[in-house]
Amino acid sequence: MVYKVNVNTGKRCAMIDITAEVQKIVTESGVEDGICMVYIPHTTAAVTINENADPDVVRDMLYELDKIVPYSDGYKHFEGNSAAHIKSSMFGFSENVIIDSGRLLLGRWQGIYLCEFDGARSRTVYLKIIDSGR
Amino acid sequence: MVYKVNVNTGKRCAMIDITAEVQKIVTESGVEDGICMVYIPHTTAAVTINENADPDVVRDMLYELDKIVPYSDGYKHFEGNSAAHIKSSMFGFSENVIIDSGRLLLGRWQGIYLCEFDGARSRTVYLKIIDSGR
Amino acid sequence: MVYKVNVNTGKRCAMIDITAEVQKIVTESGVEDGICMVYIPHTTAAVTINENADPDVVRDMLYELDKIVPYSDGYKHFEGNSAAHIKSSMFGFSENVIIDSGRLLLGRWQGIYLCEFDGARSRTVYLKIIDSGR
Repeated sequence: MVYKVNVNTGKRCAMIDITAEVQKIVTESGVEDGICMVYIPHTTAAVTINENADPDVVRDMLYELDKIVPYSDGYKHFEGNSAAHIKSSMFGFSENVIIDSGRLLLGRWQGIYLCEFDGARSRTVYLKIIDSGR
Repeated sequence: MVYKVNVNTGKRCAMIDITAEVQKIVTESGVEDGICMVYIPHTTAAVTINENADPDVVRDMLYELDKIVPYSDGYKHFEGNSAAHIKSSMFGFSENVIIDSGRLLLGRWQGIYLCEFDGARSRTVYLKIIDSGR
Repeated sequence: MVYKVNVNTGKRCAMIDITAEVQKIVTESGVEDGICMVYIPHTTAAVTINENADPDVVRDMLYELDKIVPYSDGYKHFEGNSAAHIKSSMFGFSENVIIDSGRLLLGRWQGIYLCEFDGARSRTVYLKIIDSGR
């Protein structure tokens, strides 16, 4: 079984906290111990984990990524979104989070983020839950 | 059980689409639902997922990575391939893909790529399949 | 069940080889075949896999990362450690390693590293072991 979450990203570049949606599905699954795999079936969006306290962290991350991987830089891909493809592979298309007693075992300051690098779009997140049985 | 795929990478830097080989092994495993973990047992090659339609995306990714992590930049490692080590950790050594009804549940434009950053070489990819039983 | 490893990182930026600690816990778990998920519950530290032979590789990786993601670069986050947040998302918060006949199935030159980007601190690593039963 694969669960799906839909997210409207709203901007060209954004990081959207999806932790509550992921926890809700983990709770509904009834799995007590295991792994929740968060998977992005796109090529210009990614998933990461990072701080959910000061919103300036997300602002700084998107700002600096734009400096590291400039939007225009002699790319040949006709859609003009090569920077988004590169950023996505840097951050990655899946994150695994431990499920412990029915809860996502995140660190104190961690949230799970869908990273939009070529929006605004409607994106889908797949969740696969593995029950480790102990 | 661990499955292995051998890949000749052909160039110093390359991204080689291994989706068909991975799907073939998933099919042979008979697993209907679960996770296929794709693992690279090297330190100057990586695995990522990205667009499999326009080949200019791969070209742009390799081109821009070379600008972000220059081949020569005051490195001390005697083999001279430190850029390849850094790129590999940026893209990562494993990707997990959901198996749904016996198929890799990739997005419409997604392919699985072995990323060669210090070739040409013969590389090995490990596949571990977890049956989630539902 | 979730295993925990504590690591004192000693410096502002460091990569600490935790392979032996991870193997020890895998051995104690008694699991012969499966996956060991290594998870970092922090937002300014990461986990990666890379070369464990020449220490200059780690030196070059930390050196170049500091050039790619400068420590000061117009960030707004009040703690001043935005570079560490970005580096962490680039390298990632989890790595999965295959367990084969009770051993981590690493490549010949691979070690598992806790990456400290905002130390020195005491960090925790979570390990979740999935028994694949074959």
